[in-house]
Amino acid sequence: MRERVTDFIPRAMRALELRSYEGGDSSLAVVERPVPRPGAGEVLVRIAASPVNPSDLMFLRGLYGVRKSLPVVPGFEASGTVVGSGGGLLARYLKGRRVACAAPQDGDGTWAEYMLTKAGLCIPLMKETDTEQAASLIVNPFTAWALLEEARRGAHAGVVQTAAASALGRMINKLAARRGLPLVNVVRREEQAELLRREGARHVLDSSAEDFDERLRTLCRELNVTIAFDAVAGELTGHLLAAMPKGARCVVYGALSMEGCLLHPGSLIFESKRVEGFWLAQWITSLGFLSRLKTSRAVQRLLRAELKTEVRARLPLEQAAAGLRQYAEHMTGGKILFIPKADSNES
Amino acid sequence: MRERVTDFIPRAMRALELRSYEGGDSSLAVVERPVPRPGAGEVLVRIAASPVNPSDLMFLRGLYGVRKSLPVVPGFEASGTVVGSGGGLLARYLKGRRVACAAPQDGDGTWAEYMLTKAGLCIPLMKETDTEQAASLIVNPFTAWALLEEARRGAHAGVVQTAAASALGRMINKLAARRGLPLVNVVRREEQAELLRREGARHVLDSSAEDFDERLRTLCRELNVTIAFDAVAGELTGHLLAAMPKGARCVVYGALSMEGCLLHPGSLIFESKRVEGFWLAQWITSLGFLSRLKTSRAVQRLLRAELKTEVRARLPLEQAAAGLRQYAEHMTGGKILFIPKADSNES
Repeated sequence: MRERVTDFIPRAMRALELRSYEGGDSSLAVVERPVPRPGAGEVLVRIAASPVNPSDLMFLRGLYGVRKSLPVVPGFEASGTVVGSGGGLLARYLKGRRVACAAPQDGDGTWAEYMLTKAGLCIPLMKETDTEQAASLIVNPFTAWALLEEARRGAHAGVVQTAAASALGRMINKLAARRGLPLVNVVRREEQAELLRREGARHVLDSSAEDFDERLRTLCRELNVTIAFDAVAGELTGHLLAAMPKGARCVVYGALSMEGCLLHPGSLIFESKRVEGFWLAQWITSLGFLSRLKTSRAVQRLLRAELKTEVRARLPLEQAAAGLRQYAEHMTGGKILFIPKADSNES
Repeated sequence: MRERVTDFIPRAMRALELRSYEGGDSSLAVVERPVPRPGAGEVLVRIAASPVNPSDLMFLRGLYGVRKSLPVVPGFEASGTVVGSGGGLLARYLKGRRVACAAPQDGDGTWAEYMLTKAGLCIPLMKETDTEQAASLIVNPFTAWALLEEARRGAHAGVVQTAAASALGRMINKLAARRGLPLVNVVRREEQAELLRREGARHVLDSSAEDFDERLRTLCRELNVTIAFDAVAGELTGHLLAAMPKGARCVVYGALSMEGCLLHPGSLIFESKRVEGFWLAQWITSLGFLSRLKTSRAVQRLLRAELKTEVRARLPLEQAAAGLRQYAEHMTGGKILFIPKADSNES
């Protein structure tokens, strides 16, 4: 949907700036910065809302795959309106449109009033898509969709996933149920298992239980689970690999345990199993324009249902530090959104 | 070459028997056993010579991928003569021929005067192939060949391997040199590095050196090394994976460190790298009869050159325990061969 853009683009904006990967209270500050100007193929997005994701917490500690030079504006995804184009077919097309957008891999991110990004990292929103829901369109709903596409492409009869009570894990759960795909959910605490069972999940295992390995093995055999999606890493990756039948794959897409993946060599050598990774940025880039559009429409249609994001709080940039602490303490209680501009007309 | 078989097949034979996976002096004993009779598709091989390989040491401790029910005759490969056929085209064809042979996956092995195995696990020897060299034909020369075929099939420009000073590692080294394939050799002690350099290896790194990671990374970049063959596992697998450029593969085929493979999740997620396994038994079975024959002839032609096995000692079964201790203490000093029948007419 194209809006008439009458906004005045100011010269300066407020942005959250990361100054150190060491953590501590002084590592983040709200600063005034010049509003950047788009070059060819780039757009300027006025940010409406931007969520905090687990990958942000990793990034702030310097533990994410990509370490940007400091100081830098964090934040990987947002929704907003394209208010400036640096030229190029796609960038001009996007001008005036509401979009979901991802931060460029080598520049400032979404926790600011404005962000510069590549036109190819913007997804035009459908009329009925809610701006607040669209803020979290890319990282979770797209990943849930992409992982289940991976399962479909490999013709895997059943799937096991870890961190199943995370926002993403619950989306995967609902999407798998919609598709009739058997899914084993692995969580690390009993309260998470209960949450998932209340939401209708059929197979839920607590990895801290004594009989975990045995029950996982039995379920993998019964449901013919030959692919695992692992966001935890550490020893759990090896347990997943060992539990699945011969020829199975484990796809690692996160490392919430902050530990290395530990695998039994026998799983690799004698059972033809393998371990690989998944990175959303890589996956999205690998899609052509048309399949990205097609996928983004399919995903948007599910934003009110299986791929809905729960929002816990909406905070201005000035309350970022408190919001981040709150999120880190309890990641399964809904998203925290930063709303950079209180007078934004998009929500 | 078909020989006239005039041998009398006795009813009983001497065999080395494993009675416990716990180790200790009483776990192995020379016993008298009935000579088994081949069923359909099976052959009876009179064993001429059988080597001790690293995989045997793992098997004796119950740490190999396949744990057979006890008591069992250990030993994975040998050379000998087919003296009995249970029927079937291939089995009848083999009768009277000299062969290299592998033990069946679920029965008694090669450390005995006679062994029953599937006809498909025998490789007819060429006239010029030495019986003693043929005893080690399968495990090392075939693996060296198979791994480099894997590198060729994946169009990998360069290769890195661990345990490079092992008998197998040195074969891989010579075969890669013959093919003009750049190879980085990783060893765990400086004396092994010197041994390889004396044999003409160009790139040798000691993984215990302080600048190992940095030098490995530099070499992998310079030589465009995108596949690793790892027989060590443990932390080394992760170092190999981290050092190679994006999209690289690590193929684990052994676990000499007796530790799990430890991988940095970032290598998988952000760098599209993957880890898989290689098992010779699986690879050989996946070949059809004709490609197995073709491969076995190509490998046999190199047995006096790049794929030559050094032999350190020839021992009767009665000296097995001492031989195994000697081998475990120093695995790079040439093979120990068991010669089950002192009056064998094959050597």
